[in-house]
Amino acid sequence: MNKTTMVIENVQPLLDCGRYAVKRVAGQTMRVTADVFKDGHDVIAVVLKWRPAGAKAWRETPMKHEGNDAWSGVFSLVAMGDYEFTIEAWPDAYASWREEFAKKHAGGQPDLSSEALEGAHLLEAGAKRAGRRKGAKELRAAARELSAADRDQAAALAAREDLAALMAGYPDRSLSAEFRPCGLVTAERPRALFAAWYEFFPRSAEGLGERGSTFRDCIGRLDDAKAMGFDVVYFPPIHPIGATKRKGANNSLESGPDDPGVPYAIGNRHQGCPHGGGHRDVAPELGTLEDFEWLVGEAAKRGMEVALDFALNCSPDHPYVADHPEWFFHRPDGSIKYAENPPKKYEDVYPLDYHNADWRALWEELKDLILWWAERGVRTFRVDNPHTKPVSFWEWLIAETRRKFPDLVFLSEAFTRPKMMRVLAKIGFTQSYTYFTWRNTKSELTEYFTELTTHESAEYMRPNLFANTPDILPFFLQQGGRPAFMIRAVLAATLSPVYGIYSGFELCENAALPGREEYLDSEKYQLKPRDWNAPGNIKGLVTALNRIRRENRALQELANLTFLPAESDQILFYAKATPALDNILLVAVILDPWHAQSAWVEVPLEQLGLAEDETFQVHDLLTDERFLWRGRRNFVMLDPHGRPAHVFRVRRRVASERGFDHYE
Amino acid sequence: MNKTTMVIENVQPLLDCGRYAVKRVAGQTMRVTADVFKDGHDVIAVVLKWRPAGAKAWRETPMKHEGNDAWSGVFSLVAMGDYEFTIEAWPDAYASWREEFAKKHAGGQPDLSSEALEGAHLLEAGAKRAGRRKGAKELRAAARELSAADRDQAAALAAREDLAALMAGYPDRSLSAEFRPCGLVTAERPRALFAAWYEFFPRSAEGLGERGSTFRDCIGRLDDAKAMGFDVVYFPPIHPIGATKRKGANNSLESGPDDPGVPYAIGNRHQGCPHGGGHRDVAPELGTLEDFEWLVGEAAKRGMEVALDFALNCSPDHPYVADHPEWFFHRPDGSIKYAENPPKKYEDVYPLDYHNADWRALWEELKDLILWWAERGVRTFRVDNPHTKPVSFWEWLIAETRRKFPDLVFLSEAFTRPKMMRVLAKIGFTQSYTYFTWRNTKSELTEYFTELTTHESAEYMRPNLFANTPDILPFFLQQGGRPAFMIRAVLAATLSPVYGIYSGFELCENAALPGREEYLDSEKYQLKPRDWNAPGNIKGLVTALNRIRRENRALQELANLTFLPAESDQILFYAKATPALDNILLVAVILDPWHAQSAWVEVPLEQLGLAEDETFQVHDLLTDERFLWRGRRNFVMLDPHGRPAHVFRVRRRVASERGFDHYE
Repeated sequence: MNKTTMVIENVQPLLDCGRYAVKRVAGQTMRVTADVFKDGHDVIAVVLKWRPAGAKAWRETPMKHEGNDAWSGVFSLVAMGDYEFTIEAWPDAYASWREEFAKKHAGGQPDLSSEALEGAHLLEAGAKRAGRRKGAKELRAAARELSAADRDQAAALAAREDLAALMAGYPDRSLSAEFRPCGLVTAERPRALFAAWYEFFPRSAEGLGERGSTFRDCIGRLDDAKAMGFDVVYFPPIHPIGATKRKGANNSLESGPDDPGVPYAIGNRHQGCPHGGGHRDVAPELGTLEDFEWLVGEAAKRGMEVALDFALNCSPDHPYVADHPEWFFHRPDGSIKYAENPPKKYEDVYPLDYHNADWRALWEELKDLILWWAERGVRTFRVDNPHTKPVSFWEWLIAETRRKFPDLVFLSEAFTRPKMMRVLAKIGFTQSYTYFTWRNTKSELTEYFTELTTHESAEYMRPNLFANTPDILPFFLQQGGRPAFMIRAVLAATLSPVYGIYSGFELCENAALPGREEYLDSEKYQLKPRDWNAPGNIKGLVTALNRIRRENRALQELANLTFLPAESDQILFYAKATPALDNILLVAVILDPWHAQSAWVEVPLEQLGLAEDETFQVHDLLTDERFLWRGRRNFVMLDPHGRPAHVFRVRRRVASERGFDHYE
Repeated sequence: MNKTTMVIENVQPLLDCGRYAVKRVAGQTMRVTADVFKDGHDVIAVVLKWRPAGAKAWRETPMKHEGNDAWSGVFSLVAMGDYEFTIEAWPDAYASWREEFAKKHAGGQPDLSSEALEGAHLLEAGAKRAGRRKGAKELRAAARELSAADRDQAAALAAREDLAALMAGYPDRSLSAEFRPCGLVTAERPRALFAAWYEFFPRSAEGLGERGSTFRDCIGRLDDAKAMGFDVVYFPPIHPIGATKRKGANNSLESGPDDPGVPYAIGNRHQGCPHGGGHRDVAPELGTLEDFEWLVGEAAKRGMEVALDFALNCSPDHPYVADHPEWFFHRPDGSIKYAENPPKKYEDVYPLDYHNADWRALWEELKDLILWWAERGVRTFRVDNPHTKPVSFWEWLIAETRRKFPDLVFLSEAFTRPKMMRVLAKIGFTQSYTYFTWRNTKSELTEYFTELTTHESAEYMRPNLFANTPDILPFFLQQGGRPAFMIRAVLAATLSPVYGIYSGFELCENAALPGREEYLDSEKYQLKPRDWNAPGNIKGLVTALNRIRRENRALQELANLTFLPAESDQILFYAKATPALDNILLVAVILDPWHAQSAWVEVPLEQLGLAEDETFQVHDLLTDERFLWRGRRNFVMLDPHGRPAHVFRVRRRVASERGFDHYE
């Protein structure tokens, strides 16, 4: 028998019955909604309760009735960490009494003495609940007054808001209900949501010697990334590279003595590695661990950070192979199995067995790798192929490492089926690679980004839009040349608050292996010298985009994207706006990398708070040009070579004191 | 640390995280779907598990992969009662080995001896799990064979389905995951889903004496309801009616000595009531409890049942008032409060206080009322205004009484806000009154019934479409006359598997209080003599509709409704079809009760399994007329007086052996 009289339902957001947390960043507010009601017509009180996960005491704040039994409330995510929240509701007898008393009084009911006495009893009970706390005396006095009051005096007492406020402070919760399960939210650091990433291979940074460049040589890249406006510089694995079965240029099975190897084949023969080699070490050709830490510090000085690749691949030379053969898969003859995807064999990589007899030790060791690098200043990890390891492993590793370093950021590189991609985000990955790289047409982009920004997954999956990666040189970039790079840069930088490019993108590098989406002479397999200021580069555009992103809060959120009508399949038109509509961007991007295109585009005036007949200014933040627009339908003309996009900020006319108007 | 490698998500149906049960009826199957997957490319095994709620042992059945990581499974609801279900999944190492072995063999890998040994180890482990059970020997023998097999012999062994089936019987579940929370389903009796109700006041059944008719006089109504094809006869409260503040005709505050009173003001002064009066007794003017039980038996003989009204209202004369004054609300002076909705007062009714100090005793007593009547053969209750009592009270009462009588049916009369209406269905009410009575236009009907049949609520809320009630004589019936009654009869009988009429509907009674949706001279307040075969009645149509419902399984389900295009706002066109498409109905109903209307209507050929150029017969089950239709667009013409609807059964051409075709 459950005595409560309240119903609390449809609490939002709530992922998988409270199994997973939604994501926010510290400093944001958390809005919670629910349906709350009871039988009959009593007034009810509804509060939103929250606490850091694991804490005992709840904090609470009243929720607001939005109509139709829907309630909403908000709390602030002051610090990073996990929070749980729930909703409690109860019938508010005093508020109901006030309402009924006022009705009867207004209706002219002559004798209200019994009703007044009821109110007095409620006030008395409130005073009793208050005990020695503030207001008890006032409540008791009011109770006395009410029990002796005439009809109008009683009505005046019932109307007193100060008494109502006091009573609300000492509610009778004996018939309250609390929603279960609790909702969960993780507040990460702001850069988890809003950041621009720049990926490069330290060994090809510049000034290539025989063995490539070193950490100390990376300072130029750092400065350049900073000048372009990036926040995160991300390195593919920097660990010692295995020698056994090392791959050569263009992934050939044979390698020569000068081939630098694939950074993803991690491991070495211990020789001269001060930290025992493997994932705790840096490749000697890049320098020392001290050099790396120096570079991390240099990035920090520039307001940037270094992200590392967390690639759980072991070369046959990895120290784990010798020290913990039990962590790998074995053949019946006892030898360790290399990776296979029949008929393909990957003899340079030994996969780990996450369910070996000693699995706990393995999991602890892998967790310790994150902690070890975090202690050296690395707080962002791009995780290689997480979908080939148990989801429960990642859930545990992320939770455990965050316990010590709540600012850890994990980017999931799961180019796999949608449900796996999503569940990795649910269990804790901060950001996710997406299918963006392969979405090029208007319908593809519209459909995919409508999904990414409006599906429930927008609560927990943050797309990190990499325009290219060392593994993916999309056909669109191969074929479309420099205009294609500009188009994809604008899309990546404006469709999601997190995006990235892999170095060479800004130089419009697009030499591919024939018929494949892979780079020719990929620097995964060989050193790659470059002129970082090669003619035809689009560093200016990238720099402008990163500046515009920083200056416009509308570009710093994910779910505020609205696709708008444009009467051309080759022009994508969309709005990004802050909830208060004090920062509104309208972005028009050409999708055709070859021909100029024009279109009538439609501005959703009401949605943006614009009047039907209002003249407003659209200020192109890329070129600083300003145009006056009016009404719903307006015209844009784009050219893939000269003007591949407008990134308009909407500026409204403001009357000035000095007699002329301006737009701001 | 959670070692499992499986992810199980999005289990459907699952109401409010397993807090509530979905509804089915005994004899139906229960289909469950989920997303199930793991890291990597292993073959996985997924089973659906179910058990009667409270049982220890699960039964299980394999689920089927539907693509994109979606799985489905089915179990049978053999008996009435609550069932819980969940899903368990694990990596199937032997199936993965078979798949990989076959690939390597087909790919021409020369040496597969190590792979064969792996398979042998798996078979050996399977034999060990089998222990002394069937198949252990075969598995062990196969293991020995495999460890000595050459390449092709091993491939042949790997391909053996009998071994795979044996291995599937002894799976290694060490890495399995089981979904939590469990899903819940309640299997009710078939009449919970499919029934036609007929409501009448026993005191106005016929042959009215001074005090109206008695239970013994109801036999004619029973026969008539049976002849019309009804399954349930439902009586407004049959208990003794309070004398204090008794209401007179047309709800007047004054009543004369001959006024029979409102059956909803329940209670008496104990005088001569053999069972202590109140809700356990029958009004003396209707006869004795034995008479009532006789009538219940007569209904049963006719294949029908009697439904009672469960109205928790007490008149001031109710025995509870004297015996349990603590169960009511009190004024400060100690007197019992009557019902109020300021400025209105209902002095003939005392509301119960469900949270009084002795609330457990009250709840138990109210539960015992249900059990008491159930023991007297009543298994169906129409519950009056459940939304004015605590939801948790109903949840408890329904669960507790069902424990003893799993065949209990509760109809919720909650004409209130949608969320309250739904939650009452969620917590256990079998059927619900709806807003149907006030949905008349094409857009209203389409929108509302799309919601009722496609929203998640279709899993638990069964609309019982009453076309009228003693409380509601809709304006549409008042104004539209006989055609309106015919229209509403067809809609009610075909839009939901459960529907009902309140007697007088079949006689097209529509005299109303001016400007209100209430009956003039309502028999709620007075006796009402009728000619049950009055001219202009629509008993023929009602009889036909009930026959058609019984003969066509497509009308016995809720969620199989599809609205179809008709090029007129005054014609509603819809399909009801069985999943196997062996019973397809197309219903066209005129919505205009005054003028003939015609429309081109569109038949969704693919959805109904009809070929583009196929000629099919539409057989009007109301008139027995048959028409040949072909293609998507067809024409209907309806007339509110003569032919307000077509209820077509689609009959397909079948070639006969004797040389001519027919439609069946």
